Amino acid sequence: MASLLSSDERLALATDLAQWSMVANRDAITRSYQFKDFKEAFAFMTQCALMAEQMNHHPEWFNVWNRVEVTLSTHDAGGLTKLDLDLARSMDRYANALLAK
Amino acid sequence: MASLLSSDERLALATDLAQWSMVANRDAITRSYQFKDFKEAFAFMTQCALMAEQMNHHPEWFNVWNRVEVTLSTHDAGGLTKLDLDLARSMDRYANALLAK
Repeated sequence: MASLLSSDERLALATDLAQWSMVANRDAITRSYQFKDFKEAFAFMTQCALMAEQMNHHPEWFNVWNRVEVTLSTHDAGGLTKLDLDLARSMDRYANALLAK
Repeated sequence: MASLLSSDERLALATDLAQWSMVANRDAITRSYQFKDFKEAFAFMTQCALMAEQMNHHPEWFNVWNRVEVTLSTHDAGGLTKLDLDLARSMDRYANALLAK
């Protein structure tokens, strides 16, 4: 099972994943993405879904029109693990590629 | 623009779309679906996304693992219209096909 992030790993969050923030009262991170339209938002979700399934680590996410709000935490471990950081980085990479078009 | 549902059309909701319920303090309907796993939940979401894009009418939805929570309302009209009923029926049809497997 993945182990909870160390203090050092948590510090890295602030630089490496600066657009993510901690969820109140929960060991989880959250970020909101905004795309051009629904088609682009769902293209992003599809890329993330394939990666999540491959990692066997899945997001909690909400979508309305061009907006996708993501929360990441590792349920089995009861908080943030390396899996969350890896998935967050992949999601940022997919979003940046779409937003740069 | 689609017009708000009449009283008669609202009555039909209770029979035709019995698994949907009204959202508190908002002219919107909501339903939660539960699938076998994430892969099945996202297969459902993909079918719905293609239909939503075709209708140019999109859901508000939340997904975690095998669960999908959907809220439907027509923003432009400020409440429920026929578009919401049509999308709800399509979503139920996709879900039923997956759940019957």
